[in-house]
Amino acid sequence: MSTAKVSKKIKDEAARVKKSILDGKKPEMKFPLRALTNVRYQPKVGYLEMKGRMKERTLTVNTVKTFAQTLRMMALSKQLVDTDDIATKREAYYVSKNWDDARFLEQTESDTVMDDVEALFEVNREQLGFVPEEKGGDVAGTLVVVDKDPDTGKAIRIDCTQFGSGAYSIPISVEDLKFETKAKFILVIETAGMFQRLVKHGYWKKANCILVSMGGVPTRACRRFIRRLADSMKIPVYVFVDGDPYGISNIYRTFKVGSGNAAHINEFFCVPQARFLGITPQDIIDYKLPTHPLKDVDVKRAKDAVKNDPFFQHHKLWVKAMEQLMSMGVRAEQQALAAHGLNYVMDTYLPEKIAHPERFLP
Amino acid sequence: MSTAKVSKKIKDEAARVKKSILDGKKPEMKFPLRALTNVRYQPKVGYLEMKGRMKERTLTVNTVKTFAQTLRMMALSKQLVDTDDIATKREAYYVSKNWDDARFLEQTESDTVMDDVEALFEVNREQLGFVPEEKGGDVAGTLVVVDKDPDTGKAIRIDCTQFGSGAYSIPISVEDLKFETKAKFILVIETAGMFQRLVKHGYWKKANCILVSMGGVPTRACRRFIRRLADSMKIPVYVFVDGDPYGISNIYRTFKVGSGNAAHINEFFCVPQARFLGITPQDIIDYKLPTHPLKDVDVKRAKDAVKNDPFFQHHKLWVKAMEQLMSMGVRAEQQALAAHGLNYVMDTYLPEKIAHPERFLP
Repeated sequence: MSTAKVSKKIKDEAARVKKSILDGKKPEMKFPLRALTNVRYQPKVGYLEMKGRMKERTLTVNTVKTFAQTLRMMALSKQLVDTDDIATKREAYYVSKNWDDARFLEQTESDTVMDDVEALFEVNREQLGFVPEEKGGDVAGTLVVVDKDPDTGKAIRIDCTQFGSGAYSIPISVEDLKFETKAKFILVIETAGMFQRLVKHGYWKKANCILVSMGGVPTRACRRFIRRLADSMKIPVYVFVDGDPYGISNIYRTFKVGSGNAAHINEFFCVPQARFLGITPQDIIDYKLPTHPLKDVDVKRAKDAVKNDPFFQHHKLWVKAMEQLMSMGVRAEQQALAAHGLNYVMDTYLPEKIAHPERFLP
Repeated sequence: MSTAKVSKKIKDEAARVKKSILDGKKPEMKFPLRALTNVRYQPKVGYLEMKGRMKERTLTVNTVKTFAQTLRMMALSKQLVDTDDIATKREAYYVSKNWDDARFLEQTESDTVMDDVEALFEVNREQLGFVPEEKGGDVAGTLVVVDKDPDTGKAIRIDCTQFGSGAYSIPISVEDLKFETKAKFILVIETAGMFQRLVKHGYWKKANCILVSMGGVPTRACRRFIRRLADSMKIPVYVFVDGDPYGISNIYRTFKVGSGNAAHINEFFCVPQARFLGITPQDIIDYKLPTHPLKDVDVKRAKDAVKNDPFFQHHKLWVKAMEQLMSMGVRAEQQALAAHGLNYVMDTYLPEKIAHPERFLP
């Protein structure tokens, strides 16, 4: 959505509230309910989508402060959008210190109101001018990112083959980036260490691909970057994480279809074309990987996934894989491949897997 | 130290052990003692340096396994150095799975042995081919980093003015990088959000500087990068962190002079030319910043610094600042400047401070 459209949407909502008041009615605002109980999964849609239940906030004596804060937050967002500026959650909280009685006492309060505003307009926070504190993710390989000079607006071409042992660091807001690439796929990697190995040995040249390091659970910027890149360039996304319930459920599932808590933004931040390259439970057997026993928290996570998660429930193959992992009682990290030699991952594992993407878990 | 020298150092130590054995003597190895009680601070030296106490490991029935593991770890390091490869701590642990009886059962064991080897040779781990898992830090501004293509060895010039809203991500190993810059100073920033604001508004152009985002406690690669950059280009380093004991003690102190736990590497990873730009306790008053009360852990940290830390104890100005903070009973974050407007930090705070580096805390 263009900034002009976002700005207009905010203005329209505010005008609606104003009209209610002038008409002598109680103004109200409707927010979608954000919870796991309010999401469903359809592969065609591609992400955990909200079922549409709403909560309503009507102006009363009890809600007057939150109501005012929501309007103030909308006004701040409009100012950011109109002036092409940004604010982190933390900064927005401090800006509110000048809102007299509408100021927030704790950041948790302002975070919630910001989430509400985000859900209200059904756009992602970045489009409202609000940016996360956290860092994005790293990129190396056959890709040119087209950004613009913040001052002059002139296009800047960033060639991700030209970073040597370093990498391109994804900015916090990626909405305006454009891409050029002839890469065959995007390889998304859980750990910075594995990313570094593949960069050091120029794996992206051999495989003609783009490497992205998530450094654990991917940030919103990292997810959105890959989504926009994969959509606009129409290239597949392969995810290479640890073979444990955390890597499978927390990292991969969130990456591909989003989460329950943040259901209102899944649409923008999911990467539905993602496929699970490894480490699979079957890999642990086939590649004779050193393992660790599953911890209680791992078992709980795996059971939860099979029992409560609409994504895993939909895919029989995932239910089977999770059950296999539980019956094996072990987990294996991507670094475990080093037991066969430090570069076994590049020389054997990845080429063997990538030759058969049709075998990847969904 | 060149890789050839490191390789020779490892070979010499191994030959010494071998000779002891062939001579029918018990071989022994000496490691410096790594603890806060074994460091001192002299501003001329610039970092917390070890006082030289050693622990000895002699080959006995009890130490035979650790002794063998240490030799194996040395051999792995030599292999890495000779083949220009790298291994993370985690990978080294998995490689040991092929060491038969000398294999590690837990990664904590292999980490300790790696630290010992690092201390034994008095070089930093990166020079031994061992690299951290964690990510480096982000850079934007008036700087060209000269790296080399990992395949061809050809020089690659990375122009950090050309990343738009993105940034250059510091690689895990920075020993071979070269630099070109006419920047007046390096501004090192605690939070990714503040970094993003300064990048978005092209602050580095106005101030002719290099911006580096630490994203919290700086990684080894980030510290070493700034150290090498500041040394080779002879430019000052200003550190912009939160005005709380964590920002001052954990982040700034470690950045500038190193820490007690990792005393054997302080020499390489400290940035002695660093100066504290802010937020100072006096800034909280002068700039009327919104504050939060100090938590118990903050008070403990501040008291510890004044009572036990040779760095703070040496600098009267720091003792005074810490005492001022404790008597005020509050802390303020760098984002608190947003209470005066989102860009107050660029338009007012930073220019006012940078006009007087002589007033910076040491």
